[in-house]
Amino acid sequence: MYVEPLVEQMVDWRRHLHMHPELSFHEHETARFVAGVLGTLPGVEVSHPTPTSVLGVLRGGAGDGPCVALRADIDALPISEENDFAFRSQHEGVMHACGHEGHTAMLLGAATTLAPLAPELRGEIRFVFQHAEELLPGGALDVIASGAFDGVDFVTGCHLLSMLPFGVVAVPAGPCMAAADMFTLTIRGQGGHGAMPQGSVDPVAVGAQVVTNLQHVVSRRTSPIDSVVVSVTQFHGGTADNIIPDTVSLGGTVRTFDDASRARTKAAMEQIIAGVVAAHGASYELDYVDGYDPVVNDPGVAELVAGCVREVDGVELVDVEPITGGDDMTYFLQQAPGAYFFVGTRSEEAGSTFPHHHPRFTIDERSLPHGAETLVRATLAALA
Amino acid sequence: MYVEPLVEQMVDWRRHLHMHPELSFHEHETARFVAGVLGTLPGVEVSHPTPTSVLGVLRGGAGDGPCVALRADIDALPISEENDFAFRSQHEGVMHACGHEGHTAMLLGAATTLAPLAPELRGEIRFVFQHAEELLPGGALDVIASGAFDGVDFVTGCHLLSMLPFGVVAVPAGPCMAAADMFTLTIRGQGGHGAMPQGSVDPVAVGAQVVTNLQHVVSRRTSPIDSVVVSVTQFHGGTADNIIPDTVSLGGTVRTFDDASRARTKAAMEQIIAGVVAAHGASYELDYVDGYDPVVNDPGVAELVAGCVREVDGVELVDVEPITGGDDMTYFLQQAPGAYFFVGTRSEEAGSTFPHHHPRFTIDERSLPHGAETLVRATLAALA
Amino acid sequence: MYVEPLVEQMVDWRRHLHMHPELSFHEHETARFVAGVLGTLPGVEVSHPTPTSVLGVLRGGAGDGPCVALRADIDALPISEENDFAFRSQHEGVMHACGHEGHTAMLLGAATTLAPLAPELRGEIRFVFQHAEELLPGGALDVIASGAFDGVDFVTGCHLLSMLPFGVVAVPAGPCMAAADMFTLTIRGQGGHGAMPQGSVDPVAVGAQVVTNLQHVVSRRTSPIDSVVVSVTQFHGGTADNIIPDTVSLGGTVRTFDDASRARTKAAMEQIIAGVVAAHGASYELDYVDGYDPVVNDPGVAELVAGCVREVDGVELVDVEPITGGDDMTYFLQQAPGAYFFVGTRSEEAGSTFPHHHPRFTIDERSLPHGAETLVRATLAALA
Amino acid sequence: MYVEPLVEQMVDWRRHLHMHPELSFHEHETARFVAGVLGTLPGVEVSHPTPTSVLGVLRGGAGDGPCVALRADIDALPISEENDFAFRSQHEGVMHACGHEGHTAMLLGAATTLAPLAPELRGEIRFVFQHAEELLPGGALDVIASGAFDGVDFVTGCHLLSMLPFGVVAVPAGPCMAAADMFTLTIRGQGGHGAMPQGSVDPVAVGAQVVTNLQHVVSRRTSPIDSVVVSVTQFHGGTADNIIPDTVSLGGTVRTFDDASRARTKAAMEQIIAGVVAAHGASYELDYVDGYDPVVNDPGVAELVAGCVREVDGVELVDVEPITGGDDMTYFLQQAPGAYFFVGTRSEEAGSTFPHHHPRFTIDERSLPHGAETLVRATLAALA
Repeated sequence: MYVEPLVEQMVDWRRHLHMHPELSFHEHETARFVAGVLGTLPGVEVSHPTPTSVLGVLRGGAGDGPCVALRADIDALPISEENDFAFRSQHEGVMHACGHEGHTAMLLGAATTLAPLAPELRGEIRFVFQHAEELLPGGALDVIASGAFDGVDFVTGCHLLSMLPFGVVAVPAGPCMAAADMFTLTIRGQGGHGAMPQGSVDPVAVGAQVVTNLQHVVSRRTSPIDSVVVSVTQFHGGTADNIIPDTVSLGGTVRTFDDASRARTKAAMEQIIAGVVAAHGASYELDYVDGYDPVVNDPGVAELVAGCVREVDGVELVDVEPITGGDDMTYFLQQAPGAYFFVGTRSEEAGSTFPHHHPRFTIDERSLPHGAETLVRATLAALA
Repeated sequence: MYVEPLVEQMVDWRRHLHMHPELSFHEHETARFVAGVLGTLPGVEVSHPTPTSVLGVLRGGAGDGPCVALRADIDALPISEENDFAFRSQHEGVMHACGHEGHTAMLLGAATTLAPLAPELRGEIRFVFQHAEELLPGGALDVIASGAFDGVDFVTGCHLLSMLPFGVVAVPAGPCMAAADMFTLTIRGQGGHGAMPQGSVDPVAVGAQVVTNLQHVVSRRTSPIDSVVVSVTQFHGGTADNIIPDTVSLGGTVRTFDDASRARTKAAMEQIIAGVVAAHGASYELDYVDGYDPVVNDPGVAELVAGCVREVDGVELVDVEPITGGDDMTYFLQQAPGAYFFVGTRSEEAGSTFPHHHPRFTIDERSLPHGAETLVRATLAALA
Repeated sequence: MYVEPLVEQMVDWRRHLHMHPELSFHEHETARFVAGVLGTLPGVEVSHPTPTSVLGVLRGGAGDGPCVALRADIDALPISEENDFAFRSQHEGVMHACGHEGHTAMLLGAATTLAPLAPELRGEIRFVFQHAEELLPGGALDVIASGAFDGVDFVTGCHLLSMLPFGVVAVPAGPCMAAADMFTLTIRGQGGHGAMPQGSVDPVAVGAQVVTNLQHVVSRRTSPIDSVVVSVTQFHGGTADNIIPDTVSLGGTVRTFDDASRARTKAAMEQIIAGVVAAHGASYELDYVDGYDPVVNDPGVAELVAGCVREVDGVELVDVEPITGGDDMTYFLQQAPGAYFFVGTRSEEAGSTFPHHHPRFTIDERSLPHGAETLVRATLAALA
Repeated sequence: MYVEPLVEQMVDWRRHLHMHPELSFHEHETARFVAGVLGTLPGVEVSHPTPTSVLGVLRGGAGDGPCVALRADIDALPISEENDFAFRSQHEGVMHACGHEGHTAMLLGAATTLAPLAPELRGEIRFVFQHAEELLPGGALDVIASGAFDGVDFVTGCHLLSMLPFGVVAVPAGPCMAAADMFTLTIRGQGGHGAMPQGSVDPVAVGAQVVTNLQHVVSRRTSPIDSVVVSVTQFHGGTADNIIPDTVSLGGTVRTFDDASRARTKAAMEQIIAGVVAAHGASYELDYVDGYDPVVNDPGVAELVAGCVREVDGVELVDVEPITGGDDMTYFLQQAPGAYFFVGTRSEEAGSTFPHHHPRFTIDERSLPHGAETLVRATLAALA
C-alpha cells in the first residue's frame, strides 16, 4: 500500500483533531492545523479559500494534464461526547461525531503520500479541506465561489460510515445521498397560568399534536417504495412549570431523493401543520430551508474508483443502498465529474457500533488507510 | 378610607418594584427596598427572617391582645415582559407577571397606615413580606421555620386577580386554591442521525405522544365534576436539526383540590407515561414534586374579613369559584385561623385583561387601595 | 312504611320487566304490561298518551286540590346483557342497563299504594310511564304534547343510581343533571388499496387523530372548575382488511351544565374537527343534535321531598354532586315546579357495582321500597 | 395479433362478469360461467379442482413436451360500486374493483385462441381460474392441494394495474409484490355511561391512540430505504351515542418485502399496541395472520415473457417498482419457474384513473388484448 508508512501518523492526526473539535464556520484551529501539516509537504502551495477552509495545490512535474480535486470536510457537531477515550473531546458540547476528523486525517495522509510523487506526474492535484459541511448553507459553495475549484476535471472524496462494516468500501453509481432540507417551525399560542389552560392556547400541547400528525407524511402520504424522512429533532418551549408559554419552537430535517418527492413532502408538511395549528386556535411560522441537493455520482468515475478499490489489500468492494444523509459534496460533483465513496468502519473491537451523530460514535481507525489508499490510487488513475 | 392619603404612594411603590423584579429566592433588592420603607415607620421593628424576606413587627400601646399577621409575597417570574410601560421591567427575562409587586405595595400601604394608630391598639401586628411564592418548596415554610410566625392568632393577606373585574373582592369560606404539584419528566431514547430514524429511538416523537396521551388524565379519567389540571408547560430537547437527541425533558404542573384526586391523578399520569414510553422502546424518569397544599380559609375569619369588605367604598363583595392556582399562603393558614382574599383588577382602561403569568399581564392600580383598606380594617377588627 | 306490603311484588314486576326489555319508541309490550297492572287498581283511569307510554289518572274523593304527577321512564338500551341471573334479558342485544325497569316497578308500587287512599284525598294524581328517555328527542315532549301533563301543579320522580350506595337518597336543589347533546361525525377521505396509502386519504387515521385531538376540548379549553364531557363512543369504518375505506362515521355525546359552556364546547369541537380534517386533506359533516336541557330542581319542592325522605326508615338523606347524565325529566320540570331525586342502589351483596349502561349493571332490589315510599309520601305531602 | 378476433368477445365477457361479481370463496356463478365457455372449446377438459375454481386442460397433439400453466383470479371485493356504467355491479355491496374480471376475460381469450392450435403443439397447457385471491388464506393453496398444479413446468399470468398507463406492460425480474399480512386487534376497555368516562376505560379513545402511535412503525422505526406499509383499515366499536363500549375491533394490513423486515414490523406493532393499551389500563388481543409470501419472478422466465411483450403491437415494455399489493400467485411461482406480469390500464378516456379497491375503479378495456396476447405468445414460446 502507498499509505503504509503513514498508518500511525494518520491515527495521531485523527486523535488530535478528535480532541479539538470545532463547530461549523468556526474551524479556526482545525484549519491552522491542516495548513501546518500541508506546509511541510514538498511542492504543496497552501492557501485559505475562506477563513476556515484550506486548499493545498500540488502541480505535477511531467507536463500538463487533468486537474484532480480530493475533498474532506473538517467541522464537528454540537454534541457532548460520551466516550471516555484518552483522546475524547476537550471542548464540552462539541464533538467529532460524524467522522470528519477521520476524513481530514485520510486526506492529509493522501497528500503526504502524493507530494513526493509529483515530479513524475502530469497535471495538478488539489487537496480541498472544506469547512461547515454540517450546517446549512454549507461550506462547499463558499469554496467554489472563491475560485478554488475552477478548472477541476475530476473530483473524489470519501465518507466513513459506521453502518458499513470495517473492511468494505462502496462506490455507488448514480444517486447515493439525499436532499437534506431543514426547517424551523414556530407555533404561537397564547401564554398563561399553568393552572388555567382555558385562558390560554397551549403551544406545547399543540406542538405535540403537530409532531404526532406529521408522522402521517411518511406513513400515509408517501409511497412505501419512495424514500422520505421527516424528523422533528428539536422541540423547545417553556420557562417555568407553572407558566404556559406563548410559543414553542420546533426544528428538524427532511430527506428526499428527487424533486417531485421533495415538493410533495413540503406541501404535505405545511398542510398538516396549518390544519393542526388552526384546530387549536394557534398560529405558526414555518421556515423551510432547502438543504443540499442529492449527491449523484458520475457512473464512469464511480467505475474508475471502484476499480481502484479492488486493488486495495484487505478491502472488499460492496454495493450499498442510497444513504438518507445529505452532503454538500454534491456541489463539487456538480462542478466536475466525480464520485463520492463510502468506507466501512463498524467493528465491535473498536466500539464503532453507534450511529453517526450519536454521543458515543467513533470509528475503527484501521479504516483510515482504506480511504487514504483509495484516494491516492484514484488520483494516480485519473492522472494516468 | 384609611388608606386614602397613600393612594399615589402605593402606585409609586408598585411601579418601582415592577421595574426591578427578582426571581424567587433572589429577592435581595426587593427585600432591601421593603425594609427601607418599613424602617421609616414609627414603632416598626424590621428584621429578615431569611435572607430575602422581611418582617415588620408593630406592638400596640394599649396592652395585650391577639397577634395579627398580614402577609404579602414579593418574588417575580422568569418571563420576558411584553408591556411597553415607562415602568416596564428593567431586568430582561424577569417580570412581575402575577401581581406580587402590587401585594407588596398594598402591604406597605397597610403598614404605613397602621403604624401611627398603634399606640391606641392592643396586641401586635406582624407585616410578613415573604419570598419565593412562585418556586417550590416556596418561602412560607422558611419564614415559619425561622420563628417569625410563632404566636400568631389571626392571619390574612390578599391576591390581585385579573380574572375578577376591578371593583370586586371575594373572601371564600373553605377550600379556595388548589394543591399545586410540579413534575419533571425525562424521556430517554437513543440518539442518532436525523436522516436515519430506524437506528434510533426518537425521544421527540415519543415525548409528543406522551403529551398527547396525558390529555386523557383529565378528559377521560377524571370525573367531570372534579377539578383537575395537568399542564405540560415545558418541552426541551434537541441541539441540531440533523441530530435525533438522546433525551428530551418535559415539565409541568398538576392541580387538584383533595387528596384522593391528587393520588388518582398522579397514578394515572405515571401509568400513561410508562405505557407510552414502553410502546416506543424508550425509558423515563419522573420527578413528581408535591407542591403547596390546597388553600383552605377558616369560615369564621372569612366572615369577619367579608364584613370589612362590605364597608370599603366602591367595592362589591362577590362569590368566586375555587382557583386552580396554588399558593404557599396555605402554610400560614395551617398555623393560625385566617383567610386569604382576592381583589379584582381586570379592566379594559388599565389593560388588565391578560391572564396571570402572561407577558402582558398587568393590574389596574386603582385596585391597590381596595386590598390595602381591607387589610387595615381586618386588622382593626381582629384586634378590637 | 306505606309500601311494605308491596316489597315482593315490586321485585317480581322489576324482574319481569328486566327479562323483557324494549328499545326506545318500541316499548309496546312494556306499555301493555304497565297498563295491565294499572287497570286492576280501583279508580285509576288508564290511557296511552302516545303508542308506547301509559297514563294512569287517580282523582281524590275529598274535593278539589292540586294535581300531582309522578313520572317513571320505561325504555331499555341496545346492550347485550352479561349478567347470568335467571331473570336476565330474553331479548338478545337489548337490556335494562340503566334501572328504568326499577323506576317502573317503583311507580307501579306507588300507584298500587295510593289507589285505595284516593277517597280521602283531595286533588288528582297522574302516574306517567314515559317511553324513550334514552333516545333523542326523547318521549317526554311527546307526552307533554299529548296534553297528558296539562294542569299539573307539582311533579316528582326518581332515578336509581349505582354510584350512590344502597340506603341513601339525594334530592338536589337547583341544577342536578346535564345538557345531554349527541353528535354524528362523518369523515370523508378517499378510499384505495390498503397497500398503497399514498393514493388515498385514509379516513381511519384521520378519524383517530380527530378523537385524540378532541380530548383537548376538556383538558385544555375548559375551565377545570367547569364540568364538561366530550365522549366519542362510536367509531365505524372499513369493510375489509386490504381496503382503505372512503369514510368513517363517529358518534358521541357532549354534557354541559349551562348555555355558555355548551356553546363554547360546540365551537371548540367544530374548530378542532375542521382543522384536523383539513390537515390531512379530508372533509367532514358534523351533525350536532342538541339533547335534553339540564335538569333543574325547584328548591322549594326539593325541600319538601327531602323532608319526606327523612321519614323513610333505613334511608339516609345525602348531598350529591351534579350528575353528567341527562334526562328528559327536565321537560316535565319546565311545566311545573318539581324535583327529581336519586335513590342509591350500590351494594356488593347485590352485585350492584357496575356503572350505568354497563353490560353487568344491576340494582339492589332492596332500594325499590326507598323510591316508592318517597313517591308516596311526597304525593301525600303535596296534596295535604 | 393472435387474439385479434376475440377483442370484442373479451369485452363482453368482462362486462358480464363485472355485472355479476362474487365474493371470495363464493364464486359459484363465476365458476359456472367460466366452465361454460371452456366447455365449448375443442380439446379442453374442464374440471373444478375446488367448488369455485376451474381448470381447463389442453393437450398438444404433436407429442410430449413441457406443461405450461396460465393463471387468472376470479373473485370480487366487498365494495359498493360507485360507477354508473350500464354494466355496473348488480350485486349491491360487491364489486370487481381490482380487475379480476379482466384477468378472467383475458385468460378465456387466450384459451379460445390456443385451443385450435393444440394439434400442432407439443406438451400440455393448463388454464387455471383461481378463486379467492382477495381473502386469506387465498385459493391458490387449495388449487395446488387438489393436485391440479402437479407436473407444471412453467407458469405465467398477469395483473391489470391502474397505476400503469394503458399501453405498457412490465415483467419484473425478482421480487415484485409484497408479503401481504392481515391483523385483527381487539381492544378491551371497560364500558359505561358516555357521560361518566371516569368510571370506564374508553376503548374508542385508546383505539384512536393506538392507530396514531402505530404510524411510528413506518415513520420512525423503518429504514426510509426499506418499503413497509402498516394500514389500519377497519375500526369498529360502539352501539349508542351515550354508551362507552367495552371493546373496539380494529383490522388492517401489513406489507413487507423480506423476512427481516416482516419480523421487525410485527414486533414493533405489538410493542406499540401493548404499551399504548397498558398506558390507559386496557387490554388487547392481536390476531396477526401471515398473508401471502412476496411474489418473486424467475429471472429467466421473466426474460422470456419480456421478449414476447416486445413483439406485441402497440405495447411498450417498461420497468416497474415493486408493488406493495400481495398476491397468492406467489404459491404457483413456488411450484414452478414462472413470471407474473403487469398490464397498464390507466387512461383518462376510459375513466381508469382510480386506485385498485376504489368504488370507482375500472379498466381501459383496450388493455385486454395486451394481456391475452402476451399469455398466448409466452405459452407458444415455452412450448417451442
